[in-house]
Amino acid sequence: MLRAAAAAGYEAFGYNRSEVGAKAARMDGYDVISDVEAVLTRAAGRDALIVVGVPMPAIDAVLSDVKTFAPDCVLTDVVSVKAPVAAAVQRHELGARYVGGHPMAGTSESGWAASAPDLFKNAAWAVSVDPGVHADPFRRVAQLALDCGAVVVPVLAVEHDRAVARISHLPHVLAEALAIEGANGGPLALGLAAGSFRDGTRVAATAPDLVRAICEPNATALLDVLDDTLEVLTQARDSLRANGTITELTEAGHDARTDYDDNERWFITDVRPGDHNWLTKLIDAGRSGGVLNSLD
Amino acid sequence: MLRAAAAAGYEAFGYNRSEVGAKAARMDGYDVISDVEAVLTRAAGRDALIVVGVPMPAIDAVLSDVKTFAPDCVLTDVVSVKAPVAAAVQRHELGARYVGGHPMAGTSESGWAASAPDLFKNAAWAVSVDPGVHADPFRRVAQLALDCGAVVVPVLAVEHDRAVARISHLPHVLAEALAIEGANGGPLALGLAAGSFRDGTRVAATAPDLVRAICEPNATALLDVLDDTLEVLTQARDSLRANGTITELTEAGHDARTDYDDNERWFITDVRPGDHNWLTKLIDAGRSGGVLNSLD
Repeated sequence: MLRAAAAAGYEAFGYNRSEVGAKAARMDGYDVISDVEAVLTRAAGRDALIVVGVPMPAIDAVLSDVKTFAPDCVLTDVVSVKAPVAAAVQRHELGARYVGGHPMAGTSESGWAASAPDLFKNAAWAVSVDPGVHADPFRRVAQLALDCGAVVVPVLAVEHDRAVARISHLPHVLAEALAIEGANGGPLALGLAAGSFRDGTRVAATAPDLVRAICEPNATALLDVLDDTLEVLTQARDSLRANGTITELTEAGHDARTDYDDNERWFITDVRPGDHNWLTKLIDAGRSGGVLNSLD
Repeated sequence: MLRAAAAAGYEAFGYNRSEVGAKAARMDGYDVISDVEAVLTRAAGRDALIVVGVPMPAIDAVLSDVKTFAPDCVLTDVVSVKAPVAAAVQRHELGARYVGGHPMAGTSESGWAASAPDLFKNAAWAVSVDPGVHADPFRRVAQLALDCGAVVVPVLAVEHDRAVARISHLPHVLAEALAIEGANGGPLALGLAAGSFRDGTRVAATAPDLVRAICEPNATALLDVLDDTLEVLTQARDSLRANGTITELTEAGHDARTDYDDNERWFITDVRPGDHNWLTKLIDAGRSGGVLNSLD
């Protein structure tokens, strides 16, 4: 985020609780400190837009600091779930200037060395349009996403969480299971593994604690999707056992992947933040694949 | 295969039952016809090594032609299962000069236009070392794999089939299920999908009939792995529901992916085809990750 915002011309400064992490960023010429009071006081003094980028388990501690040192700043986050963050923001009475966000981009690596200014180029960036979101903070958050090269997907927190259970959290769970089944085949199986196994297990290389921090706060939505997935797989297994075929699975799966390949963004051009019913209009547009690529 | 063998200096000629496919290859300067009797008669006259590259359901028809027109040629195949092909070869009484093969390489595309001479560079190429395999045909088949840029993984047909159920057929099944779950989330979910979903569903783009032709002949091994996978996923689901955590899954999955990343080929240097007990020695070496990168 810091690299991308700085590359886009923002006067960007940052905080990392680890002085090692902060120093690594400073060595590359970025303005990053490990003193949370100092960074938030500075943010408050400049009416900065605060972007919280920590795993869900660390949210409460960070919001508590924001409430203490910079309660009037516009606030967003890049956490992988939105409803639990929104609830935490409410608990800390920071809701008035909060607009949740989630850029759909990342790698299986972490730390300063894994960061890149072009990570968000052409990415989808979910931005909350929940009741109570105000137009001015929405504009600032959405503009930051656009300036980082992303498009803005307007979405309700709870619908975001259900969607990412399907397309982000389930891929993690299936990758872990696939990796386990492959390794159970020993060196022979792992030595024969090629592209389908490599790609299918790529995200299993993510640190286990990070996968937990991503998936567990979204347990309700993920459980629904896991139940569905177990049903799909059980049906395929039963069909293979009883009739020797997985026709239904392969045809539905191919159709689904074709839907994905054919799924095209369309640009929302007729809604401006602050217009009459703008939240409702953006919610509807986002549900049917619409994105904002400009605020004008 | 034809492109790779020709690039390696072989006098390679081919057959495709579709004249359109054969012509596409001829337009690129390759010697390919659509007359099966002519191509096999020519193969028999030159003591050619015959490589059968058809989906499992077409194997019987092809072997019947081979038995009629070129029964004394050395015979191999690149089909994704080995025990069912070996059984078919026995039925057609072609076992004496048969050595099964399976290069672990491919894309989700098919047809002449999707072929590439460097597809097998550095790939693992399973070659059968089942009882009854003779040293001379083994040498010819293994040398072809090496000349195409691959390394040879010596393996029993039944152990190959169990291994590929884990690292090739299960990835197909999980990719189909993941694609279905993603598409069920509609345009919003598909629009938010990023790298983990794209990679995890890549092979769901494969033609459904080809996925069936790959997986269904290996039903026995795939059913065992599917049962295991359902258990792993059910345990994760139950743990998430009861305790809010997927610790066990994420740690085992990460360890497994690390096993895969750390899995290194080692070169078998002390066994030559035809040596005393060479088949047994190669079976043992293959089981523990050994590969042949030379026959000398």
